[in-house]
Amino acid sequence: MSAHSHRNVDSESRLIIHKPTTRQSLERIVKASWVNVLLVFIPLGFIAHFLKWGDTAIFLLNFFAIIPLAKLLGFATEDIALRTGQTIGALLNATFGNAVELIIAIIALKEGQIRVVQASVLGSIISNLLLVLGCCFLAGGIKYSSQEFNETAAQTSASLMALACIALIIPAAFSVAIPPTADYEVVNLSHYTAIVLLIVYGLYLLFQLKTHVHLYVTEDEDDQEPELTLLISLLLLAGVTVIVALCGEFLVSSIEGITESLGLTKTFVGLILLPIVGNAAEHVTAITVAMKNKMQLAIGVAAGSSLQIALFVTPFLVVLGWIIGQPMTLFFEVFETVLLFVSVLIMNYLIQDGKSNWLEGALLLATYVIIAIAFYFYPDPPSP
Amino acid sequence: MSAHSHRNVDSESRLIIHKPTTRQSLERIVKASWVNVLLVFIPLGFIAHFLKWGDTAIFLLNFFAIIPLAKLLGFATEDIALRTGQTIGALLNATFGNAVELIIAIIALKEGQIRVVQASVLGSIISNLLLVLGCCFLAGGIKYSSQEFNETAAQTSASLMALACIALIIPAAFSVAIPPTADYEVVNLSHYTAIVLLIVYGLYLLFQLKTHVHLYVTEDEDDQEPELTLLISLLLLAGVTVIVALCGEFLVSSIEGITESLGLTKTFVGLILLPIVGNAAEHVTAITVAMKNKMQLAIGVAAGSSLQIALFVTPFLVVLGWIIGQPMTLFFEVFETVLLFVSVLIMNYLIQDGKSNWLEGALLLATYVIIAIAFYFYPDPPSP
Amino acid sequence: MSAHSHRNVDSESRLIIHKPTTRQSLERIVKASWVNVLLVFIPLGFIAHFLKWGDTAIFLLNFFAIIPLAKLLGFATEDIALRTGQTIGALLNATFGNAVELIIAIIALKEGQIRVVQASVLGSIISNLLLVLGCCFLAGGIKYSSQEFNETAAQTSASLMALACIALIIPAAFSVAIPPTADYEVVNLSHYTAIVLLIVYGLYLLFQLKTHVHLYVTEDEDDQEPELTLLISLLLLAGVTVIVALCGEFLVSSIEGITESLGLTKTFVGLILLPIVGNAAEHVTAITVAMKNKMQLAIGVAAGSSLQIALFVTPFLVVLGWIIGQPMTLFFEVFETVLLFVSVLIMNYLIQDGKSNWLEGALLLATYVIIAIAFYFYPDPPSP
Repeated sequence: MSAHSHRNVDSESRLIIHKPTTRQSLERIVKASWVNVLLVFIPLGFIAHFLKWGDTAIFLLNFFAIIPLAKLLGFATEDIALRTGQTIGALLNATFGNAVELIIAIIALKEGQIRVVQASVLGSIISNLLLVLGCCFLAGGIKYSSQEFNETAAQTSASLMALACIALIIPAAFSVAIPPTADYEVVNLSHYTAIVLLIVYGLYLLFQLKTHVHLYVTEDEDDQEPELTLLISLLLLAGVTVIVALCGEFLVSSIEGITESLGLTKTFVGLILLPIVGNAAEHVTAITVAMKNKMQLAIGVAAGSSLQIALFVTPFLVVLGWIIGQPMTLFFEVFETVLLFVSVLIMNYLIQDGKSNWLEGALLLATYVIIAIAFYFYPDPPSP
Repeated sequence: MSAHSHRNVDSESRLIIHKPTTRQSLERIVKASWVNVLLVFIPLGFIAHFLKWGDTAIFLLNFFAIIPLAKLLGFATEDIALRTGQTIGALLNATFGNAVELIIAIIALKEGQIRVVQASVLGSIISNLLLVLGCCFLAGGIKYSSQEFNETAAQTSASLMALACIALIIPAAFSVAIPPTADYEVVNLSHYTAIVLLIVYGLYLLFQLKTHVHLYVTEDEDDQEPELTLLISLLLLAGVTVIVALCGEFLVSSIEGITESLGLTKTFVGLILLPIVGNAAEHVTAITVAMKNKMQLAIGVAAGSSLQIALFVTPFLVVLGWIIGQPMTLFFEVFETVLLFVSVLIMNYLIQDGKSNWLEGALLLATYVIIAIAFYFYPDPPSP
Repeated sequence: MSAHSHRNVDSESRLIIHKPTTRQSLERIVKASWVNVLLVFIPLGFIAHFLKWGDTAIFLLNFFAIIPLAKLLGFATEDIALRTGQTIGALLNATFGNAVELIIAIIALKEGQIRVVQASVLGSIISNLLLVLGCCFLAGGIKYSSQEFNETAAQTSASLMALACIALIIPAAFSVAIPPTADYEVVNLSHYTAIVLLIVYGLYLLFQLKTHVHLYVTEDEDDQEPELTLLISLLLLAGVTVIVALCGEFLVSSIEGITESLGLTKTFVGLILLPIVGNAAEHVTAITVAMKNKMQLAIGVAAGSSLQIALFVTPFLVVLGWIIGQPMTLFFEVFETVLLFVSVLIMNYLIQDGKSNWLEGALLLATYVIIAIAFYFYPDPPSP
């Protein structure tokens, strides 16, 4: 009886934490991290853009503005994840993280800049697989000798990434094998393959959220309680996403000028620099949770984000191009397809045992650096 | 004592089942499945062929005739497997299933139709790996949340398929790398590589049937008893195989006319349509046992059949071509080699953990559909 | 008390074995193996070289001289490994085994024979991965039905080999994709990629020797004691290495003449024959320990030697070429890169489960034989 009453007291005291007030929530947001002082760069970044302070200023101010925004996005997502479980949390995170890429890609697609769209999605997949996951394994691995995560879930991600990769390898091999007079067949092949990928993505959601939820649930849910009210965290998520999208656009628009003065190729900027900025949110979240030894969530964010781009964003853009009459295909040049293949290959070797350590993180990062070097020296194709 | 006598009675009553009479056997064959009503299509298919009723009639009648035959083949094989154990059962199944392919390939090889032979074996491997195995995982996975099979046996199959794939990748890379004047070296390379593959197949049988039998034996042998006498099931197996082979040939001969009227390429028919028909037997058997949660046998049939074609039928045809003077090689065009490689890659990712679920089946089927789409749009090479 | 004194006696009697005298050591070296009678070929090999007895004599005499030397090298290394643990033992073994390759490669690089350098390192990697490891699995597997080794350590090796392979695939794809006018970029890409590989090798040593030592330590250290004094075994190691290097050089210099009379291509000799000789030491050691069921050490020697060549020797040679002005790159021709890729692929499939059996050994050897056949028929490129 006394045990029971004790329990009541305990759960009452937890209820107080459980139902934070609006005021408490706002206070907690402000105090969430010292990085918040960088929030001052947001208005500066906006002003720089609209008053045309020059590309260097626009780039730097918006770059620094994105850092605290990414941190807040992670904070809000983690808070919601405490209510929804890690699976939906990871899905939410991937969705909000990829909203920026999707918006930018749609704009570029409408303008017929198909190579830009392809570079943007490919860069995003590679940077999530290698850079974000590599940082997770490294940061987590420095603190813990070996970290574990659900093997079946990891292997499912690995297989899905392999399928996404196959869906790009086949059009590339097809394109090389057919005579140039049959080039339009690559467009047809891409359209129907994209539909298959969208169906697979739907099945994957069904698997993850309905038939095999248990694979994605972790038992070690600790005593942590949400720190924000649900409304506040949703508002924070939405608001920060919009501001990130705007800062991202300003930054992107400034990059052309910057590259000329720095002597970088557009390929390098599109495939390496932009995705680092575009994935800043997932990046910060994933590393934060990896350092708390929640590898399941970390991999959910990094691999989940890649999967969403590969199995949803990319085929969606192909179908959209089909509808609006832009010949967007799944043929991403042979060189880029090879780079995606090797990225998926090494990622799959490293995650399929359900364990990670710092050296595995270093290997992912080394692969990323080698790819970045290759794109750095890769000459821009002549403009058509 | 009473327990013992009860046991005696029990085993006596089981003995009655154990030794079925010829009459019981025949009755059971007839009642095996309602699908048997389709057996009426066999004489119709034969008549259509010999009376030249036109390609569409020949195709449809023989197509429907093969369905109950495949079912009976599965019934007979499973019955024999109850006497021999699952390993020999799977081997029997693969052998009887591939007899059709082998006979057709030998006829085509004699006529010098090397591309047809290559398309037939490649299509058969891909359809076993992706379509048959995919249907097994999907059908079994809808009934059971997760199905298990021996990991080491699965990894051995994966490694053997990887070797078979390597034996096609090397001639393809070789052929691309050498100057056109040295093309005859591809034939030499193929001959000796084929001999290596035949030796590996022999070693694999030794491993499976002699030194590591325990990996292929499953403990969950349930109380099922053979329903047919051994003689009847062997006669059934042999008879059905012959009829399947004939119906298959009639169907194949009708396909050329059909493709013209349907506007399909020969590549699509040879690599996608024919193998579906040719593998109908393995297909039905594998799905039936998968739905009974005997995944070891299901994988034995699907992967075993692929392995037999890749490591025995293909190199045997190369050596036969060497003997009868046909330049059959292991160089299967770069595009087709890439497709085989990605098929083996995803199959290996999915089976090497010794577990399956419905999403894994869906991934295999999605890969198959994408490959089918690619062959659908792939233009026929100009006739030489 | 009596137990304790008994223990003292025991450890005293073991101390006698533990501290072998110089005389005992020398006796044990002489009696180590009946193969030592072949040591008589060393002076004959030297004499044949300096008195110019003709290429056939030089080749045969030095070939037979290397056999007992390799055996002694294994003996000394295993003896040192008993003092240092298997990890450092494997590292020592790899280092001494690769000293020969490194010396020969540096000489060839100085003379600008870049293709020879590349063939030598590639052949060495492939022969270690397939031939040496294959013989280990086969020899060990004939004695033991299934052998086990640390899965995480094996997967780390597999991932590192995958990275090394990626570091060659990217320049190959890069080289194919860029216009011929930008060929110098391959050199730039190789330089910076080589630096990344050297850093990864350093991190791997840190992982293996410092942060994750436990993965590489085996518990089954039996009661064996070192048979030689430390000084004697180090002297033996150093002396034998020097003599092997010399015999190796004599043998190499004789090969050109031999190939002409035997009608072999330089490619075949460089990629297949030389590495067999060059890796004789690792080969004998690895098989010997595999037959003693010390698979951890066997894999450490075979995979460790490959890793050292791929992640240390090769990038070191690229950086050295950079310093001395030789355009040594990581672009190893597409055909050779494909062969390396398939070798790493099958090796990784076979080792990542932490178990081996004789069939896995046979598969590695079959892959090696197919590659050897391909190089045998591969025409020498026209001299520039």
